[in-house]
Amino acid sequence: MIFLTRKEHFNAAHKLCRDDWSDEKNKEVFGKCANANWHGHNFDLFVTVKGNPDPETGFVVDLKTLSLIIKEYIVEELDHKNLNLDVPFMHGVMPSTENLAIKIWEILYPLVQSERCVLHCVKLYETENNFVEYYG
Amino acid sequence: MIFLTRKEHFNAAHKLCRDDWSDEKNKEVFGKCANANWHGHNFDLFVTVKGNPDPETGFVVDLKTLSLIIKEYIVEELDHKNLNLDVPFMHGVMPSTENLAIKIWEILYPLVQSERCVLHCVKLYETENNFVEYYG
Amino acid sequence: MIFLTRKEHFNAAHKLCRDDWSDEKNKEVFGKCANANWHGHNFDLFVTVKGNPDPETGFVVDLKTLSLIIKEYIVEELDHKNLNLDVPFMHGVMPSTENLAIKIWEILYPLVQSERCVLHCVKLYETENNFVEYYG
Amino acid sequence: MIFLTRKEHFNAAHKLCRDDWSDEKNKEVFGKCANANWHGHNFDLFVTVKGNPDPETGFVVDLKTLSLIIKEYIVEELDHKNLNLDVPFMHGVMPSTENLAIKIWEILYPLVQSERCVLHCVKLYETENNFVEYYG
Amino acid sequence: MIFLTRKEHFNAAHKLCRDDWSDEKNKEVFGKCANANWHGHNFDLFVTVKGNPDPETGFVVDLKTLSLIIKEYIVEELDHKNLNLDVPFMHGVMPSTENLAIKIWEILYPLVQSERCVLHCVKLYETENNFVEYYG
Amino acid sequence: MIFLTRKEHFNAAHKLCRDDWSDEKNKEVFGKCANANWHGHNFDLFVTVKGNPDPETGFVVDLKTLSLIIKEYIVEELDHKNLNLDVPFMHGVMPSTENLAIKIWEILYPLVQSERCVLHCVKLYETENNFVEYYG
Repeated sequence: MIFLTRKEHFNAAHKLCRDDWSDEKNKEVFGKCANANWHGHNFDLFVTVKGNPDPETGFVVDLKTLSLIIKEYIVEELDHKNLNLDVPFMHGVMPSTENLAIKIWEILYPLVQSERCVLHCVKLYETENNFVEYYG
Repeated sequence: MIFLTRKEHFNAAHKLCRDDWSDEKNKEVFGKCANANWHGHNFDLFVTVKGNPDPETGFVVDLKTLSLIIKEYIVEELDHKNLNLDVPFMHGVMPSTENLAIKIWEILYPLVQSERCVLHCVKLYETENNFVEYYG
Repeated sequence: MIFLTRKEHFNAAHKLCRDDWSDEKNKEVFGKCANANWHGHNFDLFVTVKGNPDPETGFVVDLKTLSLIIKEYIVEELDHKNLNLDVPFMHGVMPSTENLAIKIWEILYPLVQSERCVLHCVKLYETENNFVEYYG
Repeated sequence: MIFLTRKEHFNAAHKLCRDDWSDEKNKEVFGKCANANWHGHNFDLFVTVKGNPDPETGFVVDLKTLSLIIKEYIVEELDHKNLNLDVPFMHGVMPSTENLAIKIWEILYPLVQSERCVLHCVKLYETENNFVEYYG
Repeated sequence: MIFLTRKEHFNAAHKLCRDDWSDEKNKEVFGKCANANWHGHNFDLFVTVKGNPDPETGFVVDLKTLSLIIKEYIVEELDHKNLNLDVPFMHGVMPSTENLAIKIWEILYPLVQSERCVLHCVKLYETENNFVEYYG
Repeated sequence: MIFLTRKEHFNAAHKLCRDDWSDEKNKEVFGKCANANWHGHNFDLFVTVKGNPDPETGFVVDLKTLSLIIKEYIVEELDHKNLNLDVPFMHGVMPSTENLAIKIWEILYPLVQSERCVLHCVKLYETENNFVEYYG
């Protein structure tokens, strides 16, 4: 069993606030992240799959294929978008890094699964100082 | 003469589009950066001053002081903000990395000037692949 | 279950040597790290907690709170200090990266524990080429 | 139990292609990596061992010793070499990052084992966007 | 006048040796870089242009256009190639980082020149420890 | 004319304080850097030379030679040392990053000079957020 990771990235805007809370409570809980007019990040996304290398190619998965799947289903949906407004799979979900990583996992899991490999981890950096990992 | 650089960072939302242009022209010129609902970045800001070290301290400038000036006048204004809507010194200015770096220079130049040192360069990273430098 | 990591850093001096060993033995075992007049490092500290995101906030833990705990109880104690002489919780402990990571874990474990989350890992970089991880 | 990692690096050439496949099939499966005249990478290698720190030294393993083992048995064999032609332990093995990491594990496992520590992971970066991890 | 930089990268094989020198002299002068069966690197390329931002767009140059020019005329020619054998513009040129940067400059200079901007610098990293800059 | 840079690093302890000042004044001016028992850093050193590539080798300077000069005359003197106590060329000099860079320049300038190349810049990082550049 070997673990293979591909890094992709996207730039997006979001804000953290609840419509059912007062401005005061949103500021208190979410601080600057509740800024009404949004803020944004350069997100780095690391997708790890695990499996046994193919004896003929030495590959767990073709990295070009893995990269294209991530780009088509994740990066295309998130890059230069507003996570609260523009992304169908985030509707009704607080766009914390935690929740975004879970949603990315749920989308990628069936797409990367093959006889030879399975999704192992989604790691998502919001800044170089803050990141989350989700293993399903 | 020695050059001293301090790095700070901020996270912000923006979009690149002109109200006096059609949506089509904005998309054509600015591409994904014209997304109506904004996008955002982790900006890295490098501020360089130049001067002769103080014989007593060995400092061109006290880095704590330089950092506090950048934080008070630049980071506080830009961090977790919308560059098009929330930042007084960017009103009426297209928030390209180029223009933002020029505005940061104009604000910092008089603030960091002393008998011993002067602002030399503002370097601003929008992503790890794109950055600008302005020397006045 | 999701894993959330916060990075902090501190700069400190230390040396690796035992008073009950001869200078020769200290040099032989610890090499340049035994230099009598100390040496130092920029340490990078990654603290990982695990738990389930709060349904209301999407947070496993409020990162500002986590950052403040690390800063108050760890960074404040270690930054610009001598790990052999200035740090009460390291008294009588050889200040190897291994031992320092274990001590940081022991301090942080009760401080970050809540109904929702628990400390998972302390990862400590001494240089970009050397780091340790401790999971309790 | 603590985990200690040492980073080393090497620069090498390779190509991914099978002699028993046509040029067309090699291009189709391996893409640009099948370029007949080779291509190359700066590889970053992270070797992680696990164990309990020695009460006298605070070390799981002496990092200088670990570094020397990696340099003698791995870096010396791979650095500025052609992975397909110049490396005895890769003869007859497709030089994918996956297979190279497995071979490095097999060589290092007996060499780093001691009463106190055992090899835990070999992590190998082919580029900053692609890496593999092998745990035996 | 503002300076704008775009980073691209490519992976390539090369060797440093002269056919008109003996193996001994090549080994003496070029060391491991003369390895007969090649070695390789992940090259990072930073292309800097200078000019005045367009008052309408805030751009010195459209980064998408700049990126496409670099990709079409440089990356496409060098990525996953052998610098000694596969690259027409390097025929008869020792593929040192110095010479490669000069050749990249010569190709890009006329391509990026416009009323508004001109090529300022080509910076080329062979490894994170070695890089060159060429200003024409 | 081309510019070639080599990166090296060293880890050292220091403190910033003047014996002819009171503890209060040292704390006021130098803050945490005046800690009596020292602190330390991982310093990154970038040495840039400029010149014309040799037509036969394509080199401005042999990087192995440049690296050996920096290691013998600078890194060997500073690595795992106390900048205030252990380094002859820093005796009587306040070990600010500024002053250390100037001293490194003065040592390297005559050592790297040749018919073909001359020292251009010494760039010294104290942390990833603070660095200085000296051009003589």
